[in-house]
Amino acid sequence: MADVAVLGAGSWGTTFAKVLADGGNAVTMWARRPEAAREIAESRRNTRYLPGITLPDSLTATSDAAAAVAGAQQIYLAVPSQQLRATLADLLPVLPDGVPLVSLMKGVEAGSRLRMSEVIAEAAHVGPERVAVVSGPNLALEIAQEHPTAAVVSCSDLDTAMAVARVARNDYFHSFVNDDVIGTEFGGVLKNLVAVAIGIVDGVGYGENTKASIITRGLAELTAFAVAHGAKPETMQGLAGLGDLIATCASPLSRNFTAGRLLGLGYSRQDVVARMNQVAEGLSSIAPVAELAAARGIPMPILEQVRLVIDEAMDPKDIAPHLTTDDAEPTLEMLS
Amino acid sequence: MADVAVLGAGSWGTTFAKVLADGGNAVTMWARRPEAAREIAESRRNTRYLPGITLPDSLTATSDAAAAVAGAQQIYLAVPSQQLRATLADLLPVLPDGVPLVSLMKGVEAGSRLRMSEVIAEAAHVGPERVAVVSGPNLALEIAQEHPTAAVVSCSDLDTAMAVARVARNDYFHSFVNDDVIGTEFGGVLKNLVAVAIGIVDGVGYGENTKASIITRGLAELTAFAVAHGAKPETMQGLAGLGDLIATCASPLSRNFTAGRLLGLGYSRQDVVARMNQVAEGLSSIAPVAELAAARGIPMPILEQVRLVIDEAMDPKDIAPHLTTDDAEPTLEMLS
Repeated sequence: MADVAVLGAGSWGTTFAKVLADGGNAVTMWARRPEAAREIAESRRNTRYLPGITLPDSLTATSDAAAAVAGAQQIYLAVPSQQLRATLADLLPVLPDGVPLVSLMKGVEAGSRLRMSEVIAEAAHVGPERVAVVSGPNLALEIAQEHPTAAVVSCSDLDTAMAVARVARNDYFHSFVNDDVIGTEFGGVLKNLVAVAIGIVDGVGYGENTKASIITRGLAELTAFAVAHGAKPETMQGLAGLGDLIATCASPLSRNFTAGRLLGLGYSRQDVVARMNQVAEGLSSIAPVAELAAARGIPMPILEQVRLVIDEAMDPKDIAPHLTTDDAEPTLEMLS
Repeated sequence: MADVAVLGAGSWGTTFAKVLADGGNAVTMWARRPEAAREIAESRRNTRYLPGITLPDSLTATSDAAAAVAGAQQIYLAVPSQQLRATLADLLPVLPDGVPLVSLMKGVEAGSRLRMSEVIAEAAHVGPERVAVVSGPNLALEIAQEHPTAAVVSCSDLDTAMAVARVARNDYFHSFVNDDVIGTEFGGVLKNLVAVAIGIVDGVGYGENTKASIITRGLAELTAFAVAHGAKPETMQGLAGLGDLIATCASPLSRNFTAGRLLGLGYSRQDVVARMNQVAEGLSSIAPVAELAAARGIPMPILEQVRLVIDEAMDPKDIAPHLTTDDAEPTLEMLS
């Protein structure tokens, strides 16, 4: 079908390279560490990030980024979000002209607060019509195990989204398209905040009713936030919004869920950071998102309560403010 | 606060009686079996349906329905859905005038296909302004254990909904109100169909990506169905739609999930019915809902595939048709 490059050999980059190879494409991965590239190229394994998974023969790897992108018809990016800009700056001289650049990443750049697709457009000097993003309920290990999964490929230019979706699909990975990049990307960022809240109530010991109430209210909150920033509401009800939110909140492996769970068990933020290899994306996003929401007057009570728990200004047992009862009159169910 | 009656002493009726009593109300339960009424009245226990839970002192029970409803300011109904009409017919002579009748039930009446609130209005000879329904992510055992839970009280007359919500709340059970009875009730019926699908993929062995994809598409399907029957779309995004759907799909105790799981493991419908005490509501609703959807031209691919699995016309592994790939072009993410 196509020659494609995947930059980044973590669990998600490697998994997506397998998705692409299983779709009939010739895939070249770029791994920063030569030994990682060698293991993939020689044994079709990435034991550090995808133990037990054998990669297809149509997939190879190199630690030479210029060699990886040479001749690629599409380039997929799965590097750590805070290294994206520098990676692209290094690659700029060798990036092929006119090919789609596809973000597999979720997050915002520290400092600039730009979404990944915006960083790509800036750093690679390309217009938004060449930058696509892939998102959805996409836990890497399940996809590596070939469980049926749906995703959405988003680009402001639907032709580009279609071109990517044609390549990035196979019999266990189904790609839809949309043109709402803002909603698609914000879904992937904001779900982490709800996952922290779900982790907290799990740590406290509450069950599915409490979690379902928080996810329901959380989707309304993140929809309001994303729509205020230009997203379409229906995107948030789709795979990149609701779908990703549900999968993330159901996964006890997620760093954000784990961080929340430790907070719910009574550990301090300091303890949580110390106990985790890596600070959960959700924790570091809370302050900037809360500031943006406040600036636009968007009420986000669940986010606010998570912030209070982190600051040790609220007992984790008291999270989920919309569940508390005071003497006031019952209210209409609020959805935004 | 108020004198209220709860008719039905199963797990949900007993749990809701506790919710009402913990809200400061004087509650009289009606249990069909005298020994059940006696156990509740004498020992504040319902060992058959809520083992391990001690009921509040402000709650009592009787097997005399006339005595239970005498003087009640609100009457809550939690009898088996197919016995509702006969129960109300028996009670008609003793039902107090002008008090709200509140459905705690989910389902449609066999034959008439009426929703529970419609059966109540017909059988009790009252207008819809006196009939309220309670729904949401409300797994009984978690509420009996006082986990924080949110619900919605719905009535076409918001004053009635408010009156019920003022009574049916306490510090762990928060009631919102809405006036969309159709959406609130359909959410509680249709979620069972999605829960069967989730059970099937669980039985097959698929994980959270597949389940999240199905829940996302399932919410779009049940929203389309409910809206075609007069519901408001926002209700389906709220506690009685999305909230109930998530909690039900997350609960391995649900009969519908269990029925689906057995189908996914390869048991025939006949085996599943034989292995379960009671036919899961979801299984018996599939044919009537599919007929109604077909009559109105509402595409419901997930429901359709569940029907095919039950009829042994499809391998459970192939469920989730929106995940399958053929040679056709990628499509826009469908949301209704």
